Amino acid sequence: MVVVMKRDATEADIERVSEKVRDAGGEAFVSRGAVHTIIGLVGDTASFMGLGLDNFPGVDHLIQVGKPYKMVARALHPQPTTVKVGPAAVGRETFTIIAGPCAVESEGQALAAARGAKAAGATILRGGAYKPRTSPYSFQGLGERGLEILAECREDTGLPVVTEVMEPRDVELVASWADALQVGTRNMQNFPLLREVGATSKPVLLKRGFAATVEEWLMAAEYVAQRGNSEIILCERGIRTFETATRNTLEVAQQESHLPVIVDPSHAMGHRELVAPMARAAIAAGADGVMIDVHHDPGEALCDGPQALTPADLLELSKDLNALALALGRQLV
Amino acid sequence: MVVVMKRDATEADIERVSEKVRDAGGEAFVSRGAVHTIIGLVGDTASFMGLGLDNFPGVDHLIQVGKPYKMVARALHPQPTTVKVGPAAVGRETFTIIAGPCAVESEGQALAAARGAKAAGATILRGGAYKPRTSPYSFQGLGERGLEILAECREDTGLPVVTEVMEPRDVELVASWADALQVGTRNMQNFPLLREVGATSKPVLLKRGFAATVEEWLMAAEYVAQRGNSEIILCERGIRTFETATRNTLEVAQQESHLPVIVDPSHAMGHRELVAPMARAAIAAGADGVMIDVHHDPGEALCDGPQALTPADLLELSKDLNALALALGRQLV
Amino acid sequence: MVVVMKRDATEADIERVSEKVRDAGGEAFVSRGAVHTIIGLVGDTASFMGLGLDNFPGVDHLIQVGKPYKMVARALHPQPTTVKVGPAAVGRETFTIIAGPCAVESEGQALAAARGAKAAGATILRGGAYKPRTSPYSFQGLGERGLEILAECREDTGLPVVTEVMEPRDVELVASWADALQVGTRNMQNFPLLREVGATSKPVLLKRGFAATVEEWLMAAEYVAQRGNSEIILCERGIRTFETATRNTLEVAQQESHLPVIVDPSHAMGHRELVAPMARAAIAAGADGVMIDVHHDPGEALCDGPQALTPADLLELSKDLNALALALGRQLV
Amino acid sequence: MVVVMKRDATEADIERVSEKVRDAGGEAFVSRGAVHTIIGLVGDTASFMGLGLDNFPGVDHLIQVGKPYKMVARALHPQPTTVKVGPAAVGRETFTIIAGPCAVESEGQALAAARGAKAAGATILRGGAYKPRTSPYSFQGLGERGLEILAECREDTGLPVVTEVMEPRDVELVASWADALQVGTRNMQNFPLLREVGATSKPVLLKRGFAATVEEWLMAAEYVAQRGNSEIILCERGIRTFETATRNTLEVAQQESHLPVIVDPSHAMGHRELVAPMARAAIAAGADGVMIDVHHDPGEALCDGPQALTPADLLELSKDLNALALALGRQLV
Repeated sequence: MVVVMKRDATEADIERVSEKVRDAGGEAFVSRGAVHTIIGLVGDTASFMGLGLDNFPGVDHLIQVGKPYKMVARALHPQPTTVKVGPAAVGRETFTIIAGPCAVESEGQALAAARGAKAAGATILRGGAYKPRTSPYSFQGLGERGLEILAECREDTGLPVVTEVMEPRDVELVASWADALQVGTRNMQNFPLLREVGATSKPVLLKRGFAATVEEWLMAAEYVAQRGNSEIILCERGIRTFETATRNTLEVAQQESHLPVIVDPSHAMGHRELVAPMARAAIAAGADGVMIDVHHDPGEALCDGPQALTPADLLELSKDLNALALALGRQLV
Repeated sequence: MVVVMKRDATEADIERVSEKVRDAGGEAFVSRGAVHTIIGLVGDTASFMGLGLDNFPGVDHLIQVGKPYKMVARALHPQPTTVKVGPAAVGRETFTIIAGPCAVESEGQALAAARGAKAAGATILRGGAYKPRTSPYSFQGLGERGLEILAECREDTGLPVVTEVMEPRDVELVASWADALQVGTRNMQNFPLLREVGATSKPVLLKRGFAATVEEWLMAAEYVAQRGNSEIILCERGIRTFETATRNTLEVAQQESHLPVIVDPSHAMGHRELVAPMARAAIAAGADGVMIDVHHDPGEALCDGPQALTPADLLELSKDLNALALALGRQLV
Repeated sequence: MVVVMKRDATEADIERVSEKVRDAGGEAFVSRGAVHTIIGLVGDTASFMGLGLDNFPGVDHLIQVGKPYKMVARALHPQPTTVKVGPAAVGRETFTIIAGPCAVESEGQALAAARGAKAAGATILRGGAYKPRTSPYSFQGLGERGLEILAECREDTGLPVVTEVMEPRDVELVASWADALQVGTRNMQNFPLLREVGATSKPVLLKRGFAATVEEWLMAAEYVAQRGNSEIILCERGIRTFETATRNTLEVAQQESHLPVIVDPSHAMGHRELVAPMARAAIAAGADGVMIDVHHDPGEALCDGPQALTPADLLELSKDLNALALALGRQLV
Repeated sequence: MVVVMKRDATEADIERVSEKVRDAGGEAFVSRGAVHTIIGLVGDTASFMGLGLDNFPGVDHLIQVGKPYKMVARALHPQPTTVKVGPAAVGRETFTIIAGPCAVESEGQALAAARGAKAAGATILRGGAYKPRTSPYSFQGLGERGLEILAECREDTGLPVVTEVMEPRDVELVASWADALQVGTRNMQNFPLLREVGATSKPVLLKRGFAATVEEWLMAAEYVAQRGNSEIILCERGIRTFETATRNTLEVAQQESHLPVIVDPSHAMGHRELVAPMARAAIAAGADGVMIDVHHDPGEALCDGPQALTPADLLELSKDLNALALALGRQLV
């Protein structure tokens, strides 16, 4: 950590900061510039954070040099992690297709989507039983009945299931049915939920908040990891706001973290015709997988129909992804 | 609702849409333009939403004309609502100061802030017992012990208490201690939580998500109202992203909704010296109140110290707000 | 165009709008909804825009149905355009690599970059003689001497040259040296400059403003086309802000316009290690080309060194792009 | 400036940086942390910028401690500047109302607006003769005839005139008619234009780019000041994108710079009913003035009618601003 002093900071101000740091067991190196004096702090950064140095007289601001996340940081685990969801592996060796209905609406609809996913080479089935909807008047999901249907689809296709859980008290129930737990974009900073999924033994698919920085996203993953569950898949879904690294945040996340990073082009784009280009871009940019909405009759979908691919569309996209994987020396599993 | 057809839509496409609308009990008015044909739908908009018209052949896109919120909409309740928090009223007749510690850290710290708030004319005490923190390594609040301390502060000052609740299963407990329940910016779309606070009889202070549009914010309020609790105070806290109405969204919210709208300049700004100008701007622009962080020793604060005012700062700001309220013909209560 | 009336609009308000439209030679179709009445206007939209209808009593807002651009709109020119820059073609049949130094610093530096570009398969040379820099204290380019050096590089490599022009009175001079004129991101809405390059016979490479919507970008192209020059290449460079279609705006631009769309991953990313993933993503998503900064010694570059590839890096990237082009059935020229 | 080394930087890497800095006449202070080593640089920051240190082996990134602007920086000129526009003073002692038509359309329209502005207490007249419009099909201004009309309005009302100039070659002409030159939001980084207005002796009203950071805005002002013209008025007009200090950037600009800062609530809001609340908020937050669009018949305005106040609206707003100025101890001139 670096403390930047104000132009008019006095020697006493500088000494006060240095002493506080030494009292906390750290070292303070003072560099006096023409305009600003800066103080470099050496020692346990976390402990310095609690000293309130930004409120000391003469202090202009603090600059954090290290990263606040630890367990999910690539810096401390240089080897990329592979996460297993049932029999399927998600990681940098492979390129994983996760597909299925946005929302489970009925047995027939879910099965059609699941079989289409399987036929197109998907190795994990997605599907929502609990749906976070902007409007209280929209379809909110089938709840536990949806979980049962997903289990039937797993039975039928052999694909493991990832599904969303929306609140802490549902975690146990959802974990008893699903192979992996999804935390949605609106819940990325639902800390009680993160703690609860962190206490299970099921892998967690953590979607990025639509206005979250990469750092906040990784801090959310840290909440999960800190509870003992480091089987985490990060899922990019596009953001609503400016960030320096706007377009290739998955690259940034991969540099910063050892966790696998996949992309959800369906929710990122919202329009059917943009899903395939984005999925192709994802693999070309280095993502570890994609997660795609499928519906046999998008016009009748109860949730996000405009972005759903038909099973036939998915099959075609899958061929492109295969060709690209080959060109890039990756294995499409 | 208006359906805009593609340039190359056929008569059959147009008829298919019209028929679907009529089957759903609505009327369809076709206007044939030089380039586009548009179809105006008359009837129950909500039912049209479920028809999947955007997926019909020949349809370019839909335009929603009405607003998706109902219970919170000003259109349907032209009179502004006044919400009572204990003895304090929040609404367009008055200008309310809510103040107190960002986080409750100890009895002494909370009491000092509460008394400072009272002395400066605040009529509601704020204070966090459960704190949503970006990092799992930051102070997470005192939990139930924090609620007890807040009750002691209420006893001491006579001020009613608003405090944050973070998850559905804590709602009952928090509601048993507090006079109003705060839903934080990260939980604005935590729908299970919204439903749960909507089922209590305590007023709800709903902060805007930092990347939420005004429409999404009002839809979140609709979740609360739909459960039977329409005692809702909207609280603007600044946004992270572009919106057409960036700077005066409180005005927009007041036009769209009958609910009172206050501003949190402490979290909006994040720096002590910007809090007072923003609070003054809030009253000048027409807000119904402000909510301000106070700490007797900001340098030692466990949470958001850099944005806390001291009791003395708050007193001074309060004088300015009084003068402005007078100039604008409002009553500072 | 659609006029949405307020809830409390009177019959007289509705008639007033309708009459104004008929006076302007259009037709007005009235649809009376339960809540809102809407009026569909048929006729010359541009003329309706000038009627000030949004200020009429009883009018809530106007909705524009058609697109404001014409000459660059795909709707009116369904066939994609191929733009020739010297002997090189930019369009949907091919995938073009444009490469060269960010800024021309010296003959030696520019030649090294140009030869590196040629060796890696680039068919157009880029290089800045006039540089728009955020700081007046940064290197501002060599000006006319830079143009001479670029001409020498063209002589040496046979590659046509695209270079930036920053103000209307330089257009003639720059056009006398260059094969194509670049309008930079900060000048996307410099309308006098757009008019001036529109009056030349040289192709124009129009970069997207970093906070411009796709519609504004196409309107800027319309300024150029309106002056008689429709040889326009759109160049995406990433944006600073939210837009619904954030990540695949090139797709959106291609749907909306017949013009070729390329991507500048160097300026979009700003960091060397993110350039190649973004370039690969660009081709996978369907871009018509990429424009890449090259420098033989990035550590010594006077402008944007951190994002420059070395000639060796470019060669390697070029191989990947070739493999992807093959996989996608495109020709890398 | 601070150089943050990578975790795996070697002693040789550290020494290489230190030596380069010493060669450039600076000093390098090395602080070795548990994870990162940082090097504090003391000396002429500008010269360090040119060393390409971010490309040195072992360097992770650079942190700039000082500010890149000089002439406009408050740090170096602690006293706020007052800028004179004809007889009117703009600065922190007063609160200035600038008002007039968005675009000059005719003598009658401009005079009506000018007289309305005068009657409401405005001390500077605004009006556009050259209009930057998103569409080439929109009214582009009357050009030189517009300047003549503005001079007639000045004659009639005695108010000095500020008007926009859009390109370098028009600067001399516009400066011969106007009392102050406006650089519009789309031209904030039109560097040739900034240099040209910097070479005149007329005050410059510099609007903030709608996606510009405060730093970029001040750097644009620095371009003007560097050419010898330090009579600059900064004009906030709202931004399109995220910035930490979104809502009170005028406060930030005032802290960073000695220049006066005014607000344009008309263009910031775009809707008539939001202009007054924003203008009131501006004075309450500490702005040095406001600039407001006036039109005697907004429904017929050729440019931005929906945001124009009538002379009567302006008069009413002016009374509120007066009351607020009094309450805050400011003089409304």
